[in-house]
Amino acid sequence: MPEKWKLQKSTTLNDYRIFSTKKKTTVSPKDGTIHDFYVVDPPDWVNIIAVTPAGKIVMIKQFRHGTDEITFEIPGGMIDSGETPAECARRELLEETGFTSTQWKQIGCVRPNPAFISNSCFTFLASGCERTSETSFDTTEDIETLLVSPPEIKQHIREGVIDHCIVIAAFGFYFHWEKSY
Amino acid sequence: MPEKWKLQKSTTLNDYRIFSTKKKTTVSPKDGTIHDFYVVDPPDWVNIIAVTPAGKIVMIKQFRHGTDEITFEIPGGMIDSGETPAECARRELLEETGFTSTQWKQIGCVRPNPAFISNSCFTFLASGCERTSETSFDTTEDIETLLVSPPEIKQHIREGVIDHCIVIAAFGFYFHWEKSY
Repeated sequence: MPEKWKLQKSTTLNDYRIFSTKKKTTVSPKDGTIHDFYVVDPPDWVNIIAVTPAGKIVMIKQFRHGTDEITFEIPGGMIDSGETPAECARRELLEETGFTSTQWKQIGCVRPNPAFISNSCFTFLASGCERTSETSFDTTEDIETLLVSPPEIKQHIREGVIDHCIVIAAFGFYFHWEKSY
Repeated sequence: MPEKWKLQKSTTLNDYRIFSTKKKTTVSPKDGTIHDFYVVDPPDWVNIIAVTPAGKIVMIKQFRHGTDEITFEIPGGMIDSGETPAECARRELLEETGFTSTQWKQIGCVRPNPAFISNSCFTFLASGCERTSETSFDTTEDIETLLVSPPEIKQHIREGVIDHCIVIAAFGFYFHWEKSY
């Protein structure tokens, strides 16, 4: 049975705006030797499965700098300082799509990559969503909103049209593995 | 409809062994203004759903420095230079668990986080797996292998015992959304 490593020292190395890097100096539980590991430290994230009264899911298309591609995703983003995950979910859905809802619940939570990334991503389900305002994006944002049926979502995952891992995990919770909170 | 940004310059900033950081200087398609974005650049990864003749899935427990927790995962790891994803999958399964298989296929591929991470993770299914050798770990590794049934896997995802996002996406492909390659 593996044991936890003991943290001796954590040093913040570089700040890159949407994440920072950290060196963790830790002690091996097997033999007491000391090793350095490097970790990416972003804020926690949320994403939202927003469903209309007709059962369509609110999807977005946007350009992503990490992969240099236009992706097909659900709304989501970083939790601001002082904000709860639930507050962030409401804000991101409104800002990115103009949709709002009065029926919210958390249905999942994942660790994007425990190997070297420290944060969590919370998945919320918003039911009975309606478009209640226009969106307005600044020069670094350009987001298209589309309403997509559940069978089309599943087909898009099968065909790789939706390939964003955190989005696929969110659909796993929505279609199959909803967790109670 | 969003358009791609044009890359003007890409600068490698820091090398952290299992990932590096990059500054991408890019031109907005909306108004031609220039912006810097910071990106994490790891090698591509693989992960493996390894199934025994009795239908159990080969799971591992190990300590993860990113989240400072012992995680419940499937085998996987970084693709070495000059290695194909399929070769890496065979190597990682053997190194981490001592299991091998003669029946392999790719069933999925994800982008772990298109927002600021550049790599892909390939998911392989290995059927009819048998334990054919012992594992031997160095001082930084300590991995426990467990054989788990599909209903237990689904329950672990529902209860948050399995919360590794890339692992959950892999099980999405295995149980529901297998892709043909």
